[in-house]
Amino acid sequence: MTIENFNNSDDTIILASTSPRRSEILKRLGVPFAAKPQDIDETVQKWKVPKSVKKLAKKKVKNALKDSSLKDFRWFLGADTVVVCNKKVFGKPASAEEAEEIIGFLSNKKHKVTTALAFFDKKSGKMVVKHNTTSVFFSKMTKKEIKQYVSTEEWQGAAGGYRIQGRGEFFVKRIKGSYSNVMGLPIHLFFAILSDAGYPVWS
Amino acid sequence: MTIENFNNSDDTIILASTSPRRSEILKRLGVPFAAKPQDIDETVQKWKVPKSVKKLAKKKVKNALKDSSLKDFRWFLGADTVVVCNKKVFGKPASAEEAEEIIGFLSNKKHKVTTALAFFDKKSGKMVVKHNTTSVFFSKMTKKEIKQYVSTEEWQGAAGGYRIQGRGEFFVKRIKGSYSNVMGLPIHLFFAILSDAGYPVWS
Repeated sequence: MTIENFNNSDDTIILASTSPRRSEILKRLGVPFAAKPQDIDETVQKWKVPKSVKKLAKKKVKNALKDSSLKDFRWFLGADTVVVCNKKVFGKPASAEEAEEIIGFLSNKKHKVTTALAFFDKKSGKMVVKHNTTSVFFSKMTKKEIKQYVSTEEWQGAAGGYRIQGRGEFFVKRIKGSYSNVMGLPIHLFFAILSDAGYPVWS
Repeated sequence: MTIENFNNSDDTIILASTSPRRSEILKRLGVPFAAKPQDIDETVQKWKVPKSVKKLAKKKVKNALKDSSLKDFRWFLGADTVVVCNKKVFGKPASAEEAEEIIGFLSNKKHKVTTALAFFDKKSGKMVVKHNTTSVFFSKMTKKEIKQYVSTEEWQGAAGGYRIQGRGEFFVKRIKGSYSNVMGLPIHLFFAILSDAGYPVWS
């Protein structure tokens, strides 16, 4: 996929994701980026983690690469996040009721959050797809607390129906692994991928 | 210390801390607060963790309670954070050189971050002081990377010379415990303290 005579020196990363949290992290890190959400079909017939998550992350990048308005960009980032608890896989809830159900299921249990990152360098033509998993321990929540939490609307667009960087953390006793991974963009892994790809992280 | 005829129904929490990160967390949680940094002497003769950290958190609240402009407020929060690595205790670095030294020391090691919270309810006269500890695992950093990181100025005002919510997380392989605790305000502990004190968390 190497583009001949490709000579764009722009460091902007095309973020092929709808998640405002991912944008927030890139902004915080001071990495130049442009969010270009991709409208892809996220339906998965049979979930396999991390395989399906990696596939979705890659799909977002591939979709962005087809967008002719982005043809002059060199760097592309796609990501996807899921929550797994007792072999059940949870993506974004479709309604407040579903969010209540999911959070009720996660209450007083450990679950795992997996985020896959797909990073493409158009100059080298190299696509890297890696993932990271974090264990999250929820405290016991009463039905009332779950209802109160869901009424904050933080469940919208969030895998597993909660946002660890919002009031969701009220119920997070502890985590093991990367926190930003739970937010949807594992910073340590991202930094390693950028460094390997020769992206100018510090400039 | 119960104030007779104290009848303030205002839910505002007086945050007796200079840390912008603590303000950021309270803002994110939607908790009404007013930051009233206390200029206290943070010198500790002989560091004992968590004892000294708890003492400093309490000192900030006690200082705020002496402030007559705050006499009509009911809720007061003080906090203090330190980093401990191989029995060495690190607070905020005084210079870029010191930040480089500390980060060089933390590189490729595990360290512990302890934050103490002091919460005072003027109506009941009850002071609660609790702490939380998180293990943080730093990856190996080159001298160049340390210099580059310190040049971001994120070390300023940060215990241990780094900010986990900034580019500091580039070097954080994983954590065990609470992430917000590393930022300076352990949300899960804070929520438990608020609930115990009868503070209207969800309104």
